[in-house]
Amino acid sequence: MELPMTVSVENPLLTALGEVLPPHALLTDEAELARHSRDAAPFGAAGRPAVVVCPETVEEVQHVVRTARARGVAVVPQGARTGLAGAANAVTGCVVLSMTRMNRILEIDTGNRLVRCEPGVVTADLAAAVAGEGLCYPPDPASFETCTIGGNIATGAGGLCCVKYGVTADYVLGLTVVLADGEVLRVGRNTVKGVAGYDLTRLFVGSEGTLGVIVEATLALVPPRPPALALLARFASTADAGEAVGAIIREGHVPSALELLDRATTRAVAALGHPLLGGDRTEAAATLIVASDAPDARERVRAMTELCRDAKALSVTAAEDEEQTGQVLRARRMVMPALAAHAGAGDREVTAFIEDVAVPRARLAVLIEQIEQIAQEHDLFIATVGHAGDGNLHPTVVFDPADPSAVRRAKDAYDAIMAAALELGGTITGEHGVGTLKRDWLARELSPRSLRLHRDVKRLLDPEGLLNPGKVLA
Amino acid sequence: MELPMTVSVENPLLTALGEVLPPHALLTDEAELARHSRDAAPFGAAGRPAVVVCPETVEEVQHVVRTARARGVAVVPQGARTGLAGAANAVTGCVVLSMTRMNRILEIDTGNRLVRCEPGVVTADLAAAVAGEGLCYPPDPASFETCTIGGNIATGAGGLCCVKYGVTADYVLGLTVVLADGEVLRVGRNTVKGVAGYDLTRLFVGSEGTLGVIVEATLALVPPRPPALALLARFASTADAGEAVGAIIREGHVPSALELLDRATTRAVAALGHPLLGGDRTEAAATLIVASDAPDARERVRAMTELCRDAKALSVTAAEDEEQTGQVLRARRMVMPALAAHAGAGDREVTAFIEDVAVPRARLAVLIEQIEQIAQEHDLFIATVGHAGDGNLHPTVVFDPADPSAVRRAKDAYDAIMAAALELGGTITGEHGVGTLKRDWLARELSPRSLRLHRDVKRLLDPEGLLNPGKVLA
Repeated sequence: MELPMTVSVENPLLTALGEVLPPHALLTDEAELARHSRDAAPFGAAGRPAVVVCPETVEEVQHVVRTARARGVAVVPQGARTGLAGAANAVTGCVVLSMTRMNRILEIDTGNRLVRCEPGVVTADLAAAVAGEGLCYPPDPASFETCTIGGNIATGAGGLCCVKYGVTADYVLGLTVVLADGEVLRVGRNTVKGVAGYDLTRLFVGSEGTLGVIVEATLALVPPRPPALALLARFASTADAGEAVGAIIREGHVPSALELLDRATTRAVAALGHPLLGGDRTEAAATLIVASDAPDARERVRAMTELCRDAKALSVTAAEDEEQTGQVLRARRMVMPALAAHAGAGDREVTAFIEDVAVPRARLAVLIEQIEQIAQEHDLFIATVGHAGDGNLHPTVVFDPADPSAVRRAKDAYDAIMAAALELGGTITGEHGVGTLKRDWLARELSPRSLRLHRDVKRLLDPEGLLNPGKVLA
Repeated sequence: MELPMTVSVENPLLTALGEVLPPHALLTDEAELARHSRDAAPFGAAGRPAVVVCPETVEEVQHVVRTARARGVAVVPQGARTGLAGAANAVTGCVVLSMTRMNRILEIDTGNRLVRCEPGVVTADLAAAVAGEGLCYPPDPASFETCTIGGNIATGAGGLCCVKYGVTADYVLGLTVVLADGEVLRVGRNTVKGVAGYDLTRLFVGSEGTLGVIVEATLALVPPRPPALALLARFASTADAGEAVGAIIREGHVPSALELLDRATTRAVAALGHPLLGGDRTEAAATLIVASDAPDARERVRAMTELCRDAKALSVTAAEDEEQTGQVLRARRMVMPALAAHAGAGDREVTAFIEDVAVPRARLAVLIEQIEQIAQEHDLFIATVGHAGDGNLHPTVVFDPADPSAVRRAKDAYDAIMAAALELGGTITGEHGVGTLKRDWLARELSPRSLRLHRDVKRLLDPEGLLNPGKVLA
């Protein structure tokens, strides 16, 4: 008697994973595999995972890593897949290690101002939990309501308040990591200060899951942020706005946000009806939004208002209270909806790709002008918004993905923007990371010796190259 | 004819070094060799260098490293040798690479708030130079008037103001390093933000010259620090002082200094005549010195004064002006002279060894009490002063180096203090580093897996083990 052709042959990888992980932790249906195949980056290669595994304990993560390794199968760690560089994209046949179910806050230590948590905690949930204890976790990437702490650490995420409060990396005191061989490594400390041995903690921060899987983090906290006051200033030229940013920095202000909207962004937010940007006023080439949460915020905002006026601002609106501050800051929060609305204005479905480069602060205005030039040359709509205080810009290229010429032009523009940033002494990524999208450009930013050392470090920690292969390094 | 026996045979190492370095850069007389044989740590092995080399250019450093490597000779980088862990101690036959003549400030960039400099710049000189441009380089290790930036980076130095401003590591944006093979590596960036590739910059910070020789640094700067106001509070028990520290942290204050003097230190400073500590008052078990340079410093000092009173302070002196603040802060600056005076009170020459451990802030009072216990048990004079806001303590053991029993007891006490810190969830070094003194203890703090990774990283960057051998790792 012949066996029927449709007999289900057991998948040995799944069987081995199932020896430790419960069935509900193993996702294999097509929809889940597709959903977990890529992050929020529109370009970049992404493959079909063999399985998505959702562990709930460190031991389960160890089992997944060891099981995959024994079979030469790649492991791709994922958080909430909000990343913008393809760092969480699956490779075909891999095990996707989704860390979102390891989302417990293990300890909030108010006396020592620190928190211990699992990697799958959503950033906003962590911030809310520590706020409930009278503390603050400042890092605020744009996706903070959905992204995870583990993803923030793995990508070295930034945000709006970095100009005063620093980036995710600055808050990571210690990590527990599952290494490529399945062993657990604890690095860092529980103390504010500590210099015992090499700083391996920072080696894992921003390594995009290529050196190990983060399974626990100890993060520093700060006292609550006082309420902010904000101002909005409109400028006739990008150079004038750049001059205002320079003056604010030179005069020793440390704003809690210092954001710039270029002409296209200002126009889009105005079109969506923001009262401080729309109406019949002269169109601005750039808008600055500046906030201060210092104890002397009122004096600071007043002084920065004067600096904007000195830099020939068309208009400056300085908030006197919380409500007016809310109105000013709304202009920044309206940027993505405004660009989406602009993009959706026609009939076609469009893609908005958010780029990320950084230059020394003083070169900001030059880079913005070069980006406007690049947009014209490539016949593209590029709206730039940026963390001006950090010299970190996000040019957003809006294009029709169904139009091969537009896709080609978008990619060319994107290359031109990174080239411009490097030329100005900057970096190809200020806070989004390298992932798959920028690994060729990383090789241009780094010297050959540095690139070699990067490869050596990768080989040291992942000799078989099974941890998130193809990310950071080709 | 026979050659006279006294003919000077050329030293091939010196000859090879002299092919690139001028004669004045090569020191070989006994006094210089002795002077460069060790740093400021009293214990720990130190050997006699073959030569002290004082390069003035990156190319000269490369030549030294390559020349030593070709002969299998160790290279020991040194700054001002103010370190307290033996990290700059020579090994016999080594080339000491003294970086003190590479002391140029290359660029102060006010628009981007950064400075580029060579490693031999004295920290106070750097701070003065950037202050001249209206900026501030905050890190303030106790030896800041003589120590060098390169040494600060290599050891990951801290200081008094870290509680608000962070440590040296937090200011290092980029480094140029000469690697063990003599190649030049540039790591890091010129921008505030940047996540391009692995964080190799932080790998070199605190690596004590074991992974490469720092030849240039790019450091972040901040706006000038506003004038501070300070308070001094005396407590009947260490626990009360610890409670005050806890309350200050819990209430969300971020003092610019939060220093604690234990009973022995308080007594020594009082004996040297500080008016706020001496006189006929009840003797204090602990003294807190707290400063604020916030814009609302007056309100902060007032609020922190109340918190000290709530914690049952024997007395609190809150400065109303700069002069009174100076008087309060003088009590902290008098600590080392006071301990020296106490030590010199007898006839014998004594050694004062400054230890360095850190614990989670909330465990501070417990550790201080344990240190007092350890002093009694070992029949030693131990005076503890600490950066209480960081949980970082410096117990200073004063003993007679000519008395073998005292030396043994001092070493035992020193081991007991590190054991206590680890037991309390702390670290064997908060800011002084591992060097030769603590490498055995590093192996106790780190897990076996972490220690193995440390060795792997060392081997990766220095396969022949010629860069500062025996430091950090045995």
